[in-house]
Amino acid sequence: MKDRICEFECNIDDMTAEEIAFAAERLMEEGAKDVTLTPVQMKKGRPATLLTVMCADEEAEKERFVRLIFKYTTTIGIRELISERYILDRSEETVSTAYGSVRCKKVSGYGAERSKLEYEDLARIAREQGLSISEARELIEDLMKQEG
Amino acid sequence: MKDRICEFECNIDDMTAEEIAFAAERLMEEGAKDVTLTPVQMKKGRPATLLTVMCADEEAEKERFVRLIFKYTTTIGIRELISERYILDRSEETVSTAYGSVRCKKVSGYGAERSKLEYEDLARIAREQGLSISEARELIEDLMKQEG
Amino acid sequence: MKDRICEFECNIDDMTAEEIAFAAERLMEEGAKDVTLTPVQMKKGRPATLLTVMCADEEAEKERFVRLIFKYTTTIGIRELISERYILDRSEETVSTAYGSVRCKKVSGYGAERSKLEYEDLARIAREQGLSISEARELIEDLMKQEG
Amino acid sequence: MKDRICEFECNIDDMTAEEIAFAAERLMEEGAKDVTLTPVQMKKGRPATLLTVMCADEEAEKERFVRLIFKYTTTIGIRELISERYILDRSEETVSTAYGSVRCKKVSGYGAERSKLEYEDLARIAREQGLSISEARELIEDLMKQEG
Amino acid sequence: MKDRICEFECNIDDMTAEEIAFAAERLMEEGAKDVTLTPVQMKKGRPATLLTVMCADEEAEKERFVRLIFKYTTTIGIRELISERYILDRSEETVSTAYGSVRCKKVSGYGAERSKLEYEDLARIAREQGLSISEARELIEDLMKQEG
Amino acid sequence: MKDRICEFECNIDDMTAEEIAFAAERLMEEGAKDVTLTPVQMKKGRPATLLTVMCADEEAEKERFVRLIFKYTTTIGIRELISERYILDRSEETVSTAYGSVRCKKVSGYGAERSKLEYEDLARIAREQGLSISEARELIEDLMKQEG
Repeated sequence: MKDRICEFECNIDDMTAEEIAFAAERLMEEGAKDVTLTPVQMKKGRPATLLTVMCADEEAEKERFVRLIFKYTTTIGIRELISERYILDRSEETVSTAYGSVRCKKVSGYGAERSKLEYEDLARIAREQGLSISEARELIEDLMKQEG
Repeated sequence: MKDRICEFECNIDDMTAEEIAFAAERLMEEGAKDVTLTPVQMKKGRPATLLTVMCADEEAEKERFVRLIFKYTTTIGIRELISERYILDRSEETVSTAYGSVRCKKVSGYGAERSKLEYEDLARIAREQGLSISEARELIEDLMKQEG
Repeated sequence: MKDRICEFECNIDDMTAEEIAFAAERLMEEGAKDVTLTPVQMKKGRPATLLTVMCADEEAEKERFVRLIFKYTTTIGIRELISERYILDRSEETVSTAYGSVRCKKVSGYGAERSKLEYEDLARIAREQGLSISEARELIEDLMKQEG
Repeated sequence: MKDRICEFECNIDDMTAEEIAFAAERLMEEGAKDVTLTPVQMKKGRPATLLTVMCADEEAEKERFVRLIFKYTTTIGIRELISERYILDRSEETVSTAYGSVRCKKVSGYGAERSKLEYEDLARIAREQGLSISEARELIEDLMKQEG
Repeated sequence: MKDRICEFECNIDDMTAEEIAFAAERLMEEGAKDVTLTPVQMKKGRPATLLTVMCADEEAEKERFVRLIFKYTTTIGIRELISERYILDRSEETVSTAYGSVRCKKVSGYGAERSKLEYEDLARIAREQGLSISEARELIEDLMKQEG
Repeated sequence: MKDRICEFECNIDDMTAEEIAFAAERLMEEGAKDVTLTPVQMKKGRPATLLTVMCADEEAEKERFVRLIFKYTTTIGIRELISERYILDRSEETVSTAYGSVRCKKVSGYGAERSKLEYEDLARIAREQGLSISEARELIEDLMKQEG
């Protein structure tokens, strides 16, 4: 399956790491599909950050994120890249376990078929049980195998 | 003023980014003075992560963090570096503003004297008022200057 | 306001850091709008560098920079990405201060309105007065508010 | 000379460094023109990796690599960027030396003219003679100059 | 359990990525316990690399690696850091499977107890069966659970 | 030959890239043996910078740099690491060429013997002749070989 995705990019050399992290968090809360920070080196030896924000390729949504990026960062120019995107078909099911319900995402397409327990649910269980994420994953996978 | 600080380090190439971020978060919640993740390249072209955890140079505390790092990561060896540390004297005062109280940290020593509004308070105001961190800082600094 | 920008990219694994820094500097001097170096890992575990050079989306200018990149680097292929770019309206004013004139860039658009003292002027004052950049900024901002 | 190149990109936060390095290696073996790993920071403080895979801009080849990326990684979305690419004309000649034959790649175009001894041949000689790559290069270059 | 480990460090700005990767590979082949490359930015905006080489804290071994690092790199100074290291007790057992034998490393200590299938064995199986590493791991883990 | 070197380190998350680059430049001008910036990720997803400053292991010099680091950065704690350092013996000679004099650094020790043309001299020639650094190096090396 294919869709199109919009990627906004800007190089930032005049915000602090605290301010950049706050901006990234706000942009995620506003519904960005993804926000990525890449360490880059800009002119004059500046240890700067490339901010990448992904959103749907729709005019209203793009306009909204352009405004949010200009609001939360100090950039004066935002580059827009539109990409084709190959995506897998997704479905989700919820499994009841002794540790509460856990979502399992299944994806398939292009010859691949995989499933993955939802991170947020594993993180909740890991916190509650004092486990690492991989221990929580193993715990739930074992339960699921027993119940077949 | 000088004290001593313990820095634990381990290279991680067999945890996912999700799992590493969870471990870092848990270690901060357990009272680490700082947790830092550095992108490194390990043998066989592995895009790995160096985990650095700082804690007080005290036996019980060190033992506690060694156990926590072994619990939350997959490492099988943790290096310990003890450093002398030069630190500034710190004091904190709280300023009442129309936007709630804001802490101001003052530091001095070694010829330096600086103050800084507490990030967490600025972040709260930024969220409440729909501002960026630097706008929130400017807002509070202006208030403080008016009241002198 | 929107314009279009050209981004040239190439991965470099057979130049030294000294040589790459020199190339980046020369490209800036030749009028690139921006030159960015990103640490990347290439095949066979090589700790390489992605060079990104931005210039106007005009044929003569693009041709000129393609030639300069082939001249100053060892790459044998340069990728060209043309992006739409959202940019703020800019104006500049110069403020006379006891420390010499300082430019102030104002930008506005897409709901944002910000101003920023020019880095080069602050850097000059910081050097002359033995200050950090943030101390120089504070010094000038205070002067400007007093004269307000 | 210009051609077109396809760049596939995906952000990975749920594979280990071991698994990512294996995937990158397999993709190179399958004929990717280049595979690059960039350290990036994703949402929730994850020290993640951007995987970039380059291949020819041809439907069958693109389809093949989409399937391979979905096979060897855990991503559920792959972005496709098509770039124009400026490339130099290449020719290769083989030089016989006392240390075995060494290929020399010559490139020219856009005002540039350069040549470079093939890394793999230098690496072989460096291993056989117990040299660093730059010593091996110097050795061969000296031989070539003597024979003129 | 604790031991001591020697970490050698040098900053490299005058080798190419190709040359650095070769040096790292040679140092691993010579028996370094670990070789790590960290992207750093050095003076004059140089996108350089920090090389870290670990070996046993024994005079002969240290002398040997100092010589090797001076041989394979261009550095003129190597820093030596000796760290205490907390290590887990390790044991290894080999499991016979339909896909050949697979080593399983068990580690324990400091309250932790974990096991891990050896990467090299999983990589072999993944190659032979056309799988990703995580598919190969799942395959073997399932076999091991069935046989209990 | 061995000496001892002092390495100061601090993590910075509340300075901009512009400010950090200025601080690094000032510290070099004040005589630091090296200043390195490493991209790291700090708590709360902050894309921060590790500043490393090297100076001689002498009390007065260390005190001077502690003061300078506290002056030019916002850090409130500076870690001090003292390392043994293996260094090669160095000598320098100056070669007169048609392009002006060029220094050649020779180093030897621990079984290694190398020489290197001084970067600054090559950079001057590269600028004057419109060459890349590697072209300037080749130019001078060829001259030196002819004159034997």
